[in-house]
This record gives sequence, C-alpha cells and structure tokens, in this order.
Amino acid sequence: MPESPAPAPAPFTADDYGARLARAADAAAQAGLAGILVAPGPDLVYLTGYQPTAVTERLTVLVVAPGQDPVLVVPALEAPDAEKAPGAAALTLRDWTDGKDPYAVTAPLLDVDGRFGVSDNAWAMHLLGLQRSLPGTSYVSLTEALPMLRAVKDEHELARIAAAGAAADRAYEEILRVRFAGRKETDVAADLARLLLEHGHSQVDFTVVGSGPNGANPHHEAGDRVIRPGDMVVLDFGGLKHGYGSDTTRTVHVGEATAEERLVHDIVRAAQQAGFEAVRPGAACQDVDRAARAVITDAGYGEYFIHRTGHGIGVTTHEPPYMIEGEERPIVPGMCFSVEPGIYLPGRFGVRIEDIVTLTDQGTGHRFNDTPHEMAIVE
Amino acid sequence: MPESPAPAPAPFTADDYGARLARAADAAAQAGLAGILVAPGPDLVYLTGYQPTAVTERLTVLVVAPGQDPVLVVPALEAPDAEKAPGAAALTLRDWTDGKDPYAVTAPLLDVDGRFGVSDNAWAMHLLGLQRSLPGTSYVSLTEALPMLRAVKDEHELARIAAAGAAADRAYEEILRVRFAGRKETDVAADLARLLLEHGHSQVDFTVVGSGPNGANPHHEAGDRVIRPGDMVVLDFGGLKHGYGSDTTRTVHVGEATAEERLVHDIVRAAQQAGFEAVRPGAACQDVDRAARAVITDAGYGEYFIHRTGHGIGVTTHEPPYMIEGEERPIVPGMCFSVEPGIYLPGRFGVRIEDIVTLTDQGTGHRFNDTPHEMAIVE
Repeated sequence: MPESPAPAPAPFTADDYGARLARAADAAAQAGLAGILVAPGPDLVYLTGYQPTAVTERLTVLVVAPGQDPVLVVPALEAPDAEKAPGAAALTLRDWTDGKDPYAVTAPLLDVDGRFGVSDNAWAMHLLGLQRSLPGTSYVSLTEALPMLRAVKDEHELARIAAAGAAADRAYEEILRVRFAGRKETDVAADLARLLLEHGHSQVDFTVVGSGPNGANPHHEAGDRVIRPGDMVVLDFGGLKHGYGSDTTRTVHVGEATAEERLVHDIVRAAQQAGFEAVRPGAACQDVDRAARAVITDAGYGEYFIHRTGHGIGVTTHEPPYMIEGEERPIVPGMCFSVEPGIYLPGRFGVRIEDIVTLTDQGTGHRFNDTPHEMAIVE
Repeated sequence: MPESPAPAPAPFTADDYGARLARAADAAAQAGLAGILVAPGPDLVYLTGYQPTAVTERLTVLVVAPGQDPVLVVPALEAPDAEKAPGAAALTLRDWTDGKDPYAVTAPLLDVDGRFGVSDNAWAMHLLGLQRSLPGTSYVSLTEALPMLRAVKDEHELARIAAAGAAADRAYEEILRVRFAGRKETDVAADLARLLLEHGHSQVDFTVVGSGPNGANPHHEAGDRVIRPGDMVVLDFGGLKHGYGSDTTRTVHVGEATAEERLVHDIVRAAQQAGFEAVRPGAACQDVDRAARAVITDAGYGEYFIHRTGHGIGVTTHEPPYMIEGEERPIVPGMCFSVEPGIYLPGRFGVRIEDIVTLTDQGTGHRFNDTPHEMAIVE
C-alpha cells in the first residue's frame, strides 16, 4: 500500500517566476545577448508556469530582454489560458489574431541588430520567420548560450526532485515483489507506471523493461517479449512529480545469474560508483563520463558502452547538463543529473544502473536514489 | 453498441513510402530546392512511417534531395527502431553516436550552397547547427516551400479519412444520448474520448466540451464546470483512426434554447454551408474563409468570429492547407480540411459547426461528416 501522501509543496508564485525572469534577463546580458526567445516547452514552464494545451504552428514566444519587461506573445485564441498561468502577473501578454503576421507583432520587441538565445525546441518555421522579419538579428541555441538557465536548482526545486526520487525508489522496491517470469515486458512496464502514479507522480515519461536481448538496446522501451527465467532485465523508469522529474535504472535478474552476467553487472556498478565519485567541486561534466567510462573500458567492455553517462533533470526528465566527453562546463552545486553507465551485449543482454545525483553546497555528491545497486533476483 | 469493426486497411508498404519520397524529391526540385530536411513528426511519418518513441535533443533528420537516395540520419541508440520502420527499405540509415557532431554527419549529404525546405517543427537548435556547419546553405519552411507535400490525399488516404469521419459521426450520435445537465464538462469529454476509441480511433487528440461561457473561448478544452439546463455546449472532438484524422464540431443545447441562441446557431449553420459551397475548382483557400465570414459579418457578428475558418487534416488533425484570409493557393482535388466557422460571445456562449471536407475529382465539395447541423437538444 502506498504511504500516506505527503502534502504537496506550495506552488511557485508570480514572484518566483518574476525572480526567474529577472535572472534570465541578467544571464542573457552577461552572455552578450540582446535577449532570449522562449518557445512553449520546459523553458516556458520554468519561466512562467505556462503550458499551452497543445503546441501548434501558431507562434507563442516569450521575449526576455535586459532592461525591458518580459512579454509573452500568444495567439489571441490562447490568451485566456495564458492569462491564468501562475507567472502571468510577472509579464505582459501581447496577442495576435489569425491572419496577422505574428513576426510583425514580435519584431518591435527585439533589437534589430541583436543576438538572441532561442529555445532549442522552438519550431524552425518560427526561427525562419524571425530571421526573415529582422535580417540583422542572429540566433544561438538557448541551451548553448545559457546552459545554466535551468540547470542549477534552488532549494524548493531540490525538494521536489528529492520527492520524485524517493517515489521512484518506492516503486522500485515494490516492483521487485511482482512476478517477472512468464509475463510480458509490457505487463511489468504497466506495473511500474501504476506504481509511479501511486507514489504521487502526475506523469509517467518512460517505463523501460528490457529483458534478455532487448536489454542490449538502450532505447528499447517495453515489448511483447515474454520474460523468462535466466533473463537479465533492465528497468528504467521515471516521470514528473509536483512538476519535477525522476529517472532511475536498476538491472535485475530472473533467478540465479551466470558468472558472466554477475561480472558485467559488477563492472557497471563500479562504473556508476566511479561516476558518482567524480561529482565534486571543480569537476567538469565530462569528468563524470570519463570516470565511469574508464572503469568499463579498463574491464574490456568499452565498445559496449554506447551512450553518454548522464543528463540533467528538472522540469523535464532529460535536459542539460550532459555528462559527456567534450562537455567541459563545471559541475555547480544545485545541478541535478543522472549517472547511468551501461554495458550492452548485442543479442544477449544489457546492464544499466542509474541514480539522480546532485553536487551539494558542502561539496559532496548526493544521490536522490537510495535503493541498493546489487543485482536483485526476481521471480 | 459499436458496429462490428471494419477490417483495418492494408498498411502502407515500403513501395508506398518510396513513391512518396520520390514525389517529395520531385517537388523539391520543382520548387528550386536542393532538398528537404524532415524532422520527427508528421512529415517523417508520412514519408517513412517512422516515429521515434520520444523526440529528444538528439538529431534525427531525413534528407531527401533530387538525384540522390533518401538518407535518414538517426542517433545510434535509435537505429534499431528506425530499421523497423515500414518505409526503412526505401531509404538508407546513417547513424551517429553520442559525443559526435551530428551536423558533421549530415553536412556531406547536403549541397553546400543549397536552399533546403525544413520541417516546420524541426528544432531551432538543429536548424542553427546546420546553418553553422554549412554557412552557404539557406532554409525555408517546408510548409511554405512545399505546402502540397501532404495536402493532396490519394485514394487510400481518403478512405482512411472517410473512416475516421464516420467513426466521429457515430460518436456524436451516441453522445446525444448521454446526460449533460448536472455533469462536469470533463465527464462528457471522457464519454467522447471513450466513444472515439470504441469506434476505432487509436488516439484521441481533443475532446472539447465548452458549456455556457466556456463555449465562448474557442480554445477551451473541458473543465470542472457543471453543465446546466439552458447551456449551449460546443462539442469539438477528433483523433486518429488508422493513422488519419477526424475533427468535427457540433453545438448542442441543454433543453430549449432562447431566440437569440437559435439565431446565432442559424447564422453559424448558414456560414458553414456557405464555406462548404465555396469548395469548388478554381477557388482559393481564402475563398472558403471569405464565404463563411461574409455570412457572419453580414449578420452583424463579424467581430465575434475570431479564428480562421479551417485547417487541413491528414496524418495529423491540424495541418496545411489553412482556410484563412491571405491564403491564395488553390483548392486542389484530394485536399481535406475543416470548415468550422463560429461565433463567440464573451462571458455568454459560443457556437461552432465543423465538418471535414474535400474537393472531389468531379469538382464538387464532399463532407466526411454527415450528422445533422441542426441544434440538437440534449438533456
């Protein structure tokens, strides 16, 4: 039975959003930008609390520029919804009506020679529309220009990520008690989804159940394969609770494992631990990847670790910073990200172990997932 | 009870996708483009049948260029899924691994001085990456450059849209028999969703239930408002069946309507009919909008018709061509689109009537929705 629900955290206020908007404007100025253009999606949720019911070809864009009030350009049809957003009091709405040129509405808000950060997931058609309306402007990926915009979490955000991680841990503990052998991956995935929801998630983003050879495809979700005794099973699941993400992976085994399976699992455990230990002041993101990868490479499995070691988490389950070779930015206290090395033996099995980790103000790494890393044996 | 399920249409084959890819390459050449760059989303589904399980910041792009084989660039992690796409046999896969520059993988496929159409919903960060990798290239919205790419449906597609429309009609007939008064909008919306699924939809995109004043916000979906006797209720619902869309709106009334409500409903009915009758060879898209709008304007309600008259439908429920002032492109046989004028009286009520319509090869308009336009009285 799930625990009694903890009280929901107090919602973010217009003041909270106002502070984020002000910080975004400052960060834009410091990055030499004339402003940032934020499309519907996680950046907009983070800065305004506004999420259109559907993302369509109609332009919605938040303009945040140093020295001017933030303005949200919205289709007239969606203005009533936008007015209800929790951050609406911290900005000005400007609507445009079908048949008008939305770029003509947006252009007067922009410095005609300015360089702007634009949301990574903004639609290309809107970027092209702005480039054409204001040929003197230039644009850069918002993630590239302001990677820290959402990366460093405040205490209220950390509390939400901790709650999401704890809920995912409870789901993991309970999934160990369900039957695996003889059931389809999709059945276990449905159990995981149900457990995440029971433990307070409002949204399930993924419930990977990769049994046997399916575990060797790190992007396999869950399929019709019937899980058998002797299978290694990768369980990777997460979603949003109180608007912040969980994402954890454990690899379990149906019945006793072979010596090779235990060896591979031990290597991944050691790699995950090494990645975690690399989370310390002064480390770059790529150091986490290098530390985890070195363990796997030294054990002779380097070619079977075919993805980066981690990704950030916050209002999404998948965002900067990335723990990847070449990412030289430093790890800053308050950043939250996954450490999730894996080994994938094509046609045979895969192993991955993942925790969400932060760097504390005290200069130590902290895991938001506390369940054992040892290979659990399930039935 | 739902009718016995009709047999599912034969799936599209690799040959079908090959033909679409060839037609896309020809269309690109005719439009003076060096090629088109297709991001995950409806364009990619249409051309390859491939839909990644999740759209992330990792670049997936289909390159279709005249005189060269189509290539799908995919993250290595997703290559196993892409290989299973129904159109995979009609193209070449090229994968890239985390840590590599995906634009460097894509650039050799592109003419360094070429002008390319790019999916409207491609991520801005990917467009910026290509613009930076190949500064001599230029880009244009794919919808703008090749508006006809998906707009004209073949007979197999028309059969799917007809089936989706018929299913939505059955759902409408059955919703008239449920209780409205005393229930929340969200309850009726859930009934609509269930009915769409019962009649063979695989996906419900929207179930708008706009009662009383909520009907005056054309983007209202469904809320906690309890429907009352005397309410006008806008019902706008649709989704995908066999991969193609339905979208229909009827406005019903709980108990007897007032003279003003009947008048407004009659005006919208007349406007919808006028829009439908404007669907004929030689007409431009904007003519449909003008015809419908003229009826409403002449009746003195022009300022309360605050959106365009229609949008295309196909593998999505919302796509070009748009029936809007300024859209001068001709209506071509095989195009499928909504005709959905409305009147919205703020704080009071709204009325909208919508059918999906095509222009036949015989030069006549044809509705895919057959349920009566008269204001149904519900309980």
